[in-house]
Amino acid sequence: MTKNQRNIYIGNSDPSIALETYKSILKLLPSSEKVDIKEALDRISFCPIYSKKSSPYYHAAAMDGIALNHKITKGASEVNPIVLKKSVDFDYVNTGNPIKAPYDSVIMIEDVIESDDEHISIISPSKPFDHIRPVGEDIVANEMIIPSAKRINPFDMASMIQGGVQEIEVVKKPKISIIPTGKEIISNPQEIGKGKIMDSNSILFSALITKLGGNPLIKNIIRDDLQELKNTIIEASQSSDIVIVNAGSSAGTEDYTLKAIESVGEVHCHGVALKPGKPTILGIINQKPVIGIPGYPVSAFVAFDEFVRPLLESLLNIESQKIKYIEGILSKRITSSLKHKEIVRVQVGRVDDKTIVTPLQRGAGITMSLVKADGIIEVPRNVEGIEKGQVVKVRLLKDLGDIDRKIVSIGSHDLIMDILSDMIPLSSNNSGSLGGILSLKTNECHIAPSHLLDEETGLYNISYLNKYLGEDWAVLKSIKRLQGLIVKKGNPKNITEIKDLTREDIKFVNRQRGAGTRVLLDYKLKDLNINKSSIYGYERELTTHMAVAAEVLEDGADVAMGVYSAAKAMDLDFIEIGYEEYDFVMKKYFIEDYRFSEILKAISSKDFKEKLEKLGGYKVDEPKIIRSGDYDD
Amino acid sequence: MTKNQRNIYIGNSDPSIALETYKSILKLLPSSEKVDIKEALDRISFCPIYSKKSSPYYHAAAMDGIALNHKITKGASEVNPIVLKKSVDFDYVNTGNPIKAPYDSVIMIEDVIESDDEHISIISPSKPFDHIRPVGEDIVANEMIIPSAKRINPFDMASMIQGGVQEIEVVKKPKISIIPTGKEIISNPQEIGKGKIMDSNSILFSALITKLGGNPLIKNIIRDDLQELKNTIIEASQSSDIVIVNAGSSAGTEDYTLKAIESVGEVHCHGVALKPGKPTILGIINQKPVIGIPGYPVSAFVAFDEFVRPLLESLLNIESQKIKYIEGILSKRITSSLKHKEIVRVQVGRVDDKTIVTPLQRGAGITMSLVKADGIIEVPRNVEGIEKGQVVKVRLLKDLGDIDRKIVSIGSHDLIMDILSDMIPLSSNNSGSLGGILSLKTNECHIAPSHLLDEETGLYNISYLNKYLGEDWAVLKSIKRLQGLIVKKGNPKNITEIKDLTREDIKFVNRQRGAGTRVLLDYKLKDLNINKSSIYGYERELTTHMAVAAEVLEDGADVAMGVYSAAKAMDLDFIEIGYEEYDFVMKKYFIEDYRFSEILKAISSKDFKEKLEKLGGYKVDEPKIIRSGDYDD
Repeated sequence: MTKNQRNIYIGNSDPSIALETYKSILKLLPSSEKVDIKEALDRISFCPIYSKKSSPYYHAAAMDGIALNHKITKGASEVNPIVLKKSVDFDYVNTGNPIKAPYDSVIMIEDVIESDDEHISIISPSKPFDHIRPVGEDIVANEMIIPSAKRINPFDMASMIQGGVQEIEVVKKPKISIIPTGKEIISNPQEIGKGKIMDSNSILFSALITKLGGNPLIKNIIRDDLQELKNTIIEASQSSDIVIVNAGSSAGTEDYTLKAIESVGEVHCHGVALKPGKPTILGIINQKPVIGIPGYPVSAFVAFDEFVRPLLESLLNIESQKIKYIEGILSKRITSSLKHKEIVRVQVGRVDDKTIVTPLQRGAGITMSLVKADGIIEVPRNVEGIEKGQVVKVRLLKDLGDIDRKIVSIGSHDLIMDILSDMIPLSSNNSGSLGGILSLKTNECHIAPSHLLDEETGLYNISYLNKYLGEDWAVLKSIKRLQGLIVKKGNPKNITEIKDLTREDIKFVNRQRGAGTRVLLDYKLKDLNINKSSIYGYERELTTHMAVAAEVLEDGADVAMGVYSAAKAMDLDFIEIGYEEYDFVMKKYFIEDYRFSEILKAISSKDFKEKLEKLGGYKVDEPKIIRSGDYDD
Repeated sequence: MTKNQRNIYIGNSDPSIALETYKSILKLLPSSEKVDIKEALDRISFCPIYSKKSSPYYHAAAMDGIALNHKITKGASEVNPIVLKKSVDFDYVNTGNPIKAPYDSVIMIEDVIESDDEHISIISPSKPFDHIRPVGEDIVANEMIIPSAKRINPFDMASMIQGGVQEIEVVKKPKISIIPTGKEIISNPQEIGKGKIMDSNSILFSALITKLGGNPLIKNIIRDDLQELKNTIIEASQSSDIVIVNAGSSAGTEDYTLKAIESVGEVHCHGVALKPGKPTILGIINQKPVIGIPGYPVSAFVAFDEFVRPLLESLLNIESQKIKYIEGILSKRITSSLKHKEIVRVQVGRVDDKTIVTPLQRGAGITMSLVKADGIIEVPRNVEGIEKGQVVKVRLLKDLGDIDRKIVSIGSHDLIMDILSDMIPLSSNNSGSLGGILSLKTNECHIAPSHLLDEETGLYNISYLNKYLGEDWAVLKSIKRLQGLIVKKGNPKNITEIKDLTREDIKFVNRQRGAGTRVLLDYKLKDLNINKSSIYGYERELTTHMAVAAEVLEDGADVAMGVYSAAKAMDLDFIEIGYEEYDFVMKKYFIEDYRFSEILKAISSKDFKEKLEKLGGYKVDEPKIIRSGDYDD
C-alpha cells in the first residue's frame, strides 16, 4: 500500500475546544443504581444521603453503672450516703442500654458503693441526663449524612449504618469497552517475536479506568479486519458508555479505525494540537463516544487523560479539580512547537529548599518516563517552549510526601543505582558523569554519581569538581567497579584488547560524550596512540551500560566498553581493563541532609555488599567523604 | 451482676511502648504470592521487578515510511532527487515494524515522493538510525522497573508488560478476622429495636482494612457466650494474620473478651493511656495478634488506627510515613488529662490565608465527628491541653485540595445548610447564632449563619455585629424562615400559643443560650410577661432544630420552639409564630473570595429555591449585602 492509501491528512484542532464541543454534543450524564451500604466503599453518592433514624434512637446509658431518677440522689454526700434498693430505686445498666422513665440519670459503677446484692449507696447527687446519651446525640433523623457526588469512605459507611441507612443510591459505574487493534499486537506473551508488540495499552487503560471508578472491558484484539472492527465498534457502542479503539488512528497503511468510525457513525474530530497524542479520533456512534487513541504508550496515556478521563468524570459526577498541582522551578529548557500543546513528563525533587522540576525523556514510546514521572507539565499551544529557571505548574502523579523524601540522582549509570533505589527512596537518571555534575551545579539533583578520570593527575573526579563546582562540593568515595570490553558470548571474534577495536571486521558501539566510560576509553586510546576515526561505530552513542550490552547481545555491535555487571546481567563475555572509582558527588549542604545519612547507611549495609557481590565486578571500601579544599595544600 | 464481677481494673500503659513491645514479640513479616501482571493493580511489590527483555527488543521503525540503507541516500537534494526501487532499494514500513540489515534508516512517508507503484524519489539524505527506535530505547533487559514495597500503579503495569514481565511476586494480602460481640449488637437492620445497636464497627474496620490492602473477614456476631467466643478466637487466630474482637473490652458486666483471650492465650496489655480507646486489649494467641477493641465508634477507630493499622502495615511492608500532616492554628482551647494521649477530631479551614484547626465534638459515640473531620490531632500524655492560638500538627484524613476549597460555616443550625453543602463545598457546624459570630471574630470560619433579633431595634443581627465585630463585618440577607412551636402529630395536648408552655401538663425542651431561636423565645416571653421558671424543661438545652424536633417525636418533650422545616421533616405538627431573617454573616474580606461567589450563585439558583419550597417554611428574596458602616448615618 502506498502513500495515497494512507490517512495522512489529519487535522490540528485545539484539544480543549474539541473536547468542549464533543461534550456538548454527547451530553453525558451519570446514572444511578442502588447498592447495599456494605458494598458502598469508594462508590460515589448519586444524591445526598439522609439518616432514616436518630442515633441513638433512644436515651441510652453512656457508661456502665446504675440508672435512677436524679431526684432521689438529692443531698447525697460522704457524710450522708443515700442507700438505694435494686429494682425499686435503681437498675444496673451497661453502656448502650436504654434508659426508661422514670429513670433520667446514670451514675458510673466506679462511684457506686455496693452493700449487698440488693443494696447500694451513693455519696454524691446526680443531675438529669448525667451519663445518658440523648436521642440524636450523634445523628438526628432526616439529617444529611453525606452530600451527593461524594466518594464514600469508611467513616461515611459507619455513620450511614448508625443513621439506619441500609441501601443507598450511588453513581452507576460507567462501562468502557477497550478495543485493541493492529496485526502486530498480541496479548499472549507466548506469541512474542520480532514485529510483535505486547498490548500494554489495554492494561494501562483498564487500570486507569478502574482507579477512577469505571468498569473496563477489554475486547479481543482485532487484526486490521475492517468489517470485524466495524461490527465490534457497533456492538461496543450499544453495550457500553464509552468505547476506546486503540491504535489504528495514525497515518499507517493499516489504520482502519477512522474508516470504521466514519462508516458507522460520525467523526467529530480527527487530529488534535497535542503532543504526544496528535492522531486522536473523537467519534460518535449510537450517541456514544468512540475514541480512537494512538498506539505509542505515552501518546495513549496523554490522549486518554485529555479525552477519555473528562468523559468518564462526567459520567461519574466527579470533578477534575481533585487533581493536585505544585509549582516548581524548571531545571532545563523545554522547546516545543507553536502548533500544539505538549505534555511533558517531569521529575520533581526538593533540592536545597527549592522545588526543582526536571523534564524526563520525551519519546512517545518511553513507558519508563511514566513510571519515573512525579508529574506532568503542559507547554501550551502557541508557546515555543519554557526557559530554564521559570516557575512551572506541575500536575502531580505521585504523593507529595514521596517527593519530599526522594533523593534525586543525575549522572553516571550503574546497576548499583537500581539496588540503591530499592533500599532508599531514590530516583536515578542517566546523563553520564559530566552531565550529572552540571545538573548538580544548577541544583537539579542531590547527588551525581561520577567516575571521571583526570588524565593528568590519575585521580577520579576531583579536578572536574574543582573546575565545574568551584568551592562547593563534597564527594563520597566507597565503590570501585570493573570496566572492560563487553563481547558476545564465547567471544566469536576473539577480541582481547582495546587495539582490536580498530579491526575491519569489528563493529563498536560507544557511550555518549561526558560519560566516564567514554573518558576512560579516550584516555586509553590516547595512551595507545589509536585514532578514534579508525574505530567503526565510534560515533554511535548510547547512554547506559545496559544499552550498549543489549546492543552487543542483539547483534547491533560486536563490542562495547562497559562494566562487568552489565556483561554478566546479559550473559555476555567480558575482557577486564581495570577498576575505577565510582563516586557520589554532592554539594556541601547535602552532607547534613537526613537523606544523605540514608545513602551512607545503605552503602555501609551488609545487604548492599551482598547484592554487589552477586552482581560481580565491584569492590566496596569504608566510605570516605572529601570536601572541596581538602586537597588544597 | 455487680461491680465485683466487672473487669474494672484495667491498666494505663503508654500506647507507643505497648505497641513497640507487642510488635517485637509478634515479629510480623510480609509473605508473598505470585499474581498475573493484569491483576497487580494496587498490590505491593514483594521484591524489585526487573525487565525480562528489552523494549523494543528489535530495532523498530519509529514512523510510517520507508526503510533503506542510509548510504544510498547520500547527496539527495531537491535539484538531485534520488530514485529508488521498491523491494530492491527500500521497503515500506509501518511504525513498530522491525528494521532488518542492511537497512539502517527510515524516511518518513511525508518526505517520500511516489512515482509509481514500484518507484519513489527522495530529496534529502538520511542518517543511520534516523526514525528507528533502537533496542532498549524504553527498557533494557534486566533493568529494574520498580523497587520492592511499591504500590503498583497503571504505569508500572504497562512498563512491566513492555519489559516482558508476565507474573510478579507481590505481598500477600493479610487476612484480618473481625469478631463482633455483644448481645445488643445486630447486623440485620430488620431486628432493630430499643437496646439493639447496629454493628457499624465491623463495616468500618472492614472498609479501613480494604483501603490499606488487607483482606477482611467479618465473623458472625457472638452474643456474650464465652465458650463460643473462645472457639471463634482460636479458629480465627489459626486461619488469619490478625484477629479483632470488637467491644467486650471495657468494664461492662458482659465483657467476655478479656476472659476469652486470657484463657486461650496471653494478654500482652489491657488498658492504654489513650482517649478514646482506653480499654483496648492486646492479646497473643497462636503467635497471632488478637486485639480487643472498645465498642464506641470513635474509640473503635482510634484503637484500630493506633494498634491494628501498624501491624497491618508491617504485614504489607508499607510505611506509615505515607500519612500526610499539615500545621495549623488551633481556634479553641482543648483540655485533656495528663493521664492519657488524646485523639481529637478537627476541621481544617483556610480562613483569611491562615490554616485554622477547629476541634469537633469529642464524644466517643459521635460517628459524624469522623465524617466531618478533616484530620485528627494528638494531645500527648502528660500534657494538660493545648491553648487556643497554638500551632498544632494535624494528620489529614482528607485531601488538602478539598480543604482549600471548603467554606467553613459555624453558627445557627438550619436544614438549608444541608442543602447548601450538597451544592457547594461547605462544612456546617452548629453552635447557635452568637457562637458563630464569636467564631467569626476569631477567624475560625468564613461565614456565620445568624438570626439574632434585637429587641430594641426590631432588626436582625446588625446590633450584635456592631457589638462583637466592630467595623469589620458584612452580612448577606436573602432568606427568611418560619419559626413556631413544634408539637406532636395531631397536637394531642392542644397547644396553640406560647402561653401554653407554662401549663403544668406540658414538658418543654429548649435550645441552647446564644441560639437565635432562644433569643426569639425570650423576646416573646418578655413581651408576654411570662416567667421562664414557670416553664418545665426550660433549662434543658439541645443544639439543633432537628434535635428538639426528635425529642418531641421520641416523647422526651411535648413541645419545642423551632423552624417549620424541622417539624415537617419529622412529620410533626407546627404552630406558626412568624418569619425571621436567616442571614450569613462574614468579615469584609470574604466578599472578594471566590468561595463567596459560590454561595451567592447557589442561593440565587432555581435549584436552591425549589429545594426550599419542598422543605416548606422559607422565603427567598433577592440577595442583598450590607456592610458595617452602611447604617451609620
